[in-house]
Amino acid sequence: MAQNIYDNPDFFSGYCQLPRQVQGLSGAPEWPAIRALLPSLAGKRIVDLGCGFGWASRWMREQGAASVLGIDLSENMISRAQEFTREDAITYQMADLETLELPEATFDLAYSALTFHYVRDFERLARMVHRSLVPGADFVFTIEHPIFMAATYPRWTEDEDGRKTWPVNRYSVEGERQTDWFVKGVVKYHRTIGTTLNALIQAGFEIKAVEEFAPSLDQIRENPALEEEIERPMMLLISAKR
Amino acid sequence: MAQNIYDNPDFFSGYCQLPRQVQGLSGAPEWPAIRALLPSLAGKRIVDLGCGFGWASRWMREQGAASVLGIDLSENMISRAQEFTREDAITYQMADLETLELPEATFDLAYSALTFHYVRDFERLARMVHRSLVPGADFVFTIEHPIFMAATYPRWTEDEDGRKTWPVNRYSVEGERQTDWFVKGVVKYHRTIGTTLNALIQAGFEIKAVEEFAPSLDQIRENPALEEEIERPMMLLISAKR
Repeated sequence: MAQNIYDNPDFFSGYCQLPRQVQGLSGAPEWPAIRALLPSLAGKRIVDLGCGFGWASRWMREQGAASVLGIDLSENMISRAQEFTREDAITYQMADLETLELPEATFDLAYSALTFHYVRDFERLARMVHRSLVPGADFVFTIEHPIFMAATYPRWTEDEDGRKTWPVNRYSVEGERQTDWFVKGVVKYHRTIGTTLNALIQAGFEIKAVEEFAPSLDQIRENPALEEEIERPMMLLISAKR
Repeated sequence: MAQNIYDNPDFFSGYCQLPRQVQGLSGAPEWPAIRALLPSLAGKRIVDLGCGFGWASRWMREQGAASVLGIDLSENMISRAQEFTREDAITYQMADLETLELPEATFDLAYSALTFHYVRDFERLARMVHRSLVPGADFVFTIEHPIFMAATYPRWTEDEDGRKTWPVNRYSVEGERQTDWFVKGVVKYHRTIGTTLNALIQAGFEIKAVEEFAPSLDQIRENPALEEEIERPMMLLISAKR
């Protein structure tokens, strides 16, 4: 079973303060880039893997989705999502993505934001998602970028000119990484970009787009703290088609 | 026009000493990984973009290719390639990949090793290669990995434990990078992985495999100097299909 860090009270209270949890989708600087990857949602049956508080699930329903199934490992997240939702077309389910089995050929879109780097067996997950989609369906997701995750000590350093610089080592050593984020020992799984893309292709997906999120100049003007994101990508956005 | 560093005498004399130039394909640790991406070559009409001394061109003909056209910007490389080749089915042509136009629907495989990072306009190149291939043809190439190329000072540092660590900055700032390799001021063009893959997809290719070369344990046992390559990928290998 995946580590359920979101039900750790210290983690959860820190996590709840993040702009993207307080403000929802508009608090996530990568959201415009994700939207650009999403197909038209009208009439679509959607599964949201790692739905958290359900911000995206509700937004997708507002865009005309026929139904949204939000899945999350965390009881905290699911109960908060249910509290925020007044919509019969949105349902939430507590489940572990390591073992989840969705019904076959049921969804038109699988969506996931910043969740799959908590999943150890991405190959299994990719095959399961593929089976759950109808032919022609989309699979759009974001993960922490492997450049961001690879190193033993993933934190800013400086180069000879004082420029913010991100260390990379152990890039080809895939597997568990422990990081301190609100609490000590949050477990994530590092995979190379190649491994992630090849797992999708092997599962039967066609890669449609790969984006390594960097803020726009407008975003940096509005929020100068984002400028460091041009130095190294923190997030990988992938769009694939069954 | 692309910088023609290979016809700089100081660069060329240094370059000729590289194991991969002295020993040919077996001197390149990534060669087994490239071979794994190549389709059967029997009867294929192949273009080798940035053929250098023609090591791969000749090997592909030995594997049964019907014909190989080797293209290189460097007069030094092309004349050396011609000298080494006694085969009417292999022809060489001096040309700049920035402006090259190949005949349409003529090749079954386009191959390139460590060349496209010298090309400023990869979108144009990808579209041109796509037109030159027949439907179902393969496009297999290697480039320097953007993790390797991005930083202002791309050279080993150490982390807190003394582990070899590679600096990344300016990752999302695409464009020219100057590096010192045998001579000062070798010009290369940094692109993110996303940009490279999306240019291929936009040109009409389907991505078949993405490999970020890392040496095997056997290769490290034979050549311990390769061990550092597990810390950060130096090369990106891509297989695509028209």
